[in-house]
Amino acid sequence: MAHVTFPLTSLSDLDALTRDLPQVDAVAQDAARDRQNALTKPPGSLGRLEELAVFMAGWQQQAMPQIDMAQALVFAGNHGICAQGVNPFPQEVTAQMVQNFKAGGAAINQLCRTNDAQLSVIDLDLDRPTADFTQGPAMTEADCVAALNAGAAALHPAASVLILGEMGIGNSTVAAALTAAVFGGAVQDWVGRGTGSDDEGLRRKVDAITRGLARHAATPQDGASILMTLGGREQAAICGAVLAARQRRIPVILDGFICTASVAPLFALAPAALDHCLIGHLSVEPGHKRLLDAIGKTAVLDFDMRLGEGSGAALALGILRSALACHSGMATFAEAGVADG
Amino acid sequence: MAHVTFPLTSLSDLDALTRDLPQVDAVAQDAARDRQNALTKPPGSLGRLEELAVFMAGWQQQAMPQIDMAQALVFAGNHGICAQGVNPFPQEVTAQMVQNFKAGGAAINQLCRTNDAQLSVIDLDLDRPTADFTQGPAMTEADCVAALNAGAAALHPAASVLILGEMGIGNSTVAAALTAAVFGGAVQDWVGRGTGSDDEGLRRKVDAITRGLARHAATPQDGASILMTLGGREQAAICGAVLAARQRRIPVILDGFICTASVAPLFALAPAALDHCLIGHLSVEPGHKRLLDAIGKTAVLDFDMRLGEGSGAALALGILRSALACHSGMATFAEAGVADG
Repeated sequence: MAHVTFPLTSLSDLDALTRDLPQVDAVAQDAARDRQNALTKPPGSLGRLEELAVFMAGWQQQAMPQIDMAQALVFAGNHGICAQGVNPFPQEVTAQMVQNFKAGGAAINQLCRTNDAQLSVIDLDLDRPTADFTQGPAMTEADCVAALNAGAAALHPAASVLILGEMGIGNSTVAAALTAAVFGGAVQDWVGRGTGSDDEGLRRKVDAITRGLARHAATPQDGASILMTLGGREQAAICGAVLAARQRRIPVILDGFICTASVAPLFALAPAALDHCLIGHLSVEPGHKRLLDAIGKTAVLDFDMRLGEGSGAALALGILRSALACHSGMATFAEAGVADG
Repeated sequence: MAHVTFPLTSLSDLDALTRDLPQVDAVAQDAARDRQNALTKPPGSLGRLEELAVFMAGWQQQAMPQIDMAQALVFAGNHGICAQGVNPFPQEVTAQMVQNFKAGGAAINQLCRTNDAQLSVIDLDLDRPTADFTQGPAMTEADCVAALNAGAAALHPAASVLILGEMGIGNSTVAAALTAAVFGGAVQDWVGRGTGSDDEGLRRKVDAITRGLARHAATPQDGASILMTLGGREQAAICGAVLAARQRRIPVILDGFICTASVAPLFALAPAALDHCLIGHLSVEPGHKRLLDAIGKTAVLDFDMRLGEGSGAALALGILRSALACHSGMATFAEAGVADG
């Protein structure tokens, strides 16, 4: 099998690429574990900070992982499914929020500044929403491939870690459609209130997704097809960025429900494709816990957040920095002359 | 009642002081809530970050709270109860770890550097452990008052927030004794493995605490008496620092089980005395959840940590910084020209 890389030329490239990814370096992980057990603390007493350091060591392939540059990417898109009344906000809000990101006024700007991440906001054809997936495929193959490539191209090759987020009015419906298609189960179990749907809005979301799934029941159900028929451009871009990062062994922090749901199609293609991804926080959106259980991951933080934009991922970056500071900066028992029992 | 302040001259001063404390500023909290609801996000979508901003506003008495200087204090003490074999480590480790703190090699050093806190380590008569509380009161009144005053004196009056931690071989037994005395219940429910007790060590801890409680059953059971008879110097110093901070309306982040247990005597004197305190993290030590339920608090983080030193509190400081950055730095809907539905 020829080695596939970005830019992709077709969706079949996506399938090939997810089966040809670098794996975690177990030797570096073991070295990091040995170091943790030699540091001046009872073994295991830093809990999940220790796990984060070992995770980073494995992907950076060094016993002393570090964050020289953290990159944050927020992808924005608009969605034809809004024609089904699934969101109380007008689609113009997507572009307004992109302007807010670019002007520095959003939560993600403050969180990237505080936790030292370089933020780029990438709006994907906001004036050309995807198609309404109750009527046909959300994207053409060319559209989907272009969005995948845009996501991959946005990655800074020197990033030590990549934070991902999204913005797109209507995309909590898109996210629920993707997870329902990939993992099955009752549609309503994947649907939540998003930015503020009332009970009637919730019913419209469930109904739109149910009709969308029925509309595409006869098309192939592989991950790439699901992404194209039900996803949005920012979902495809997130998939592209995740895979481009993986090819360079750059660890990723995904944000909440929508961001995690965006890569559900990759999990469908190859579950190991998400091995280099942390989940920044557990969203209030009820589908997120179900989704994390389905992909076998636990979120770093649980803060009752439901904003998106990468906000939970950027918050988790601060925790990751603390984890690596302990790992690299602490003295060993031998160095400090402390009795270790 | 005369206004009591530090330095205290007797333990009865402690009782008076806890009944004469400034309260949270509800007007500033309301102003902070109004601001949160005007920021460019769905109301409530930053979850507990919003609550933290409102908490800080109330204690700093301003709608836009800020952290100009974060102070971290780690108090260290030695404990006569170690004579009962309650800890697998020799008491010399307390002084060795204090040296490690002062040399910059411990977890708390890295966490304070990463989260920008000014750390001071205060060792309290390490060569003169408290008395074995199975034989008599752990401290004299003069010792206890001196430790309370040392804690209060260590507070920097210009601190925007105070992070507290402790170090002391044997002090998870002291902490369990304090919580058992204040809140009652079965002794074993307050006892955990600390830095690494095996099953036999656990039994020795339960036995020592049971005998200690019986030894002092006839003495007064008010908070000040419990602190003196069962506590250690670092526990008293933490109480002093918490109260001195409260007198200046400086919010506090307590660390895990031992740090929170240290102020259980203050809760016994006046539950509202802890209103200005956050709990940095939920410790693995099983008594911590029970203790938080008893004092009606929820920890900021839950990271499977059990190190002490203020490590969980310093980690939570980073979260607090992110919360305030969003609160102060985000644009309102009106400022950003974003439609708010």
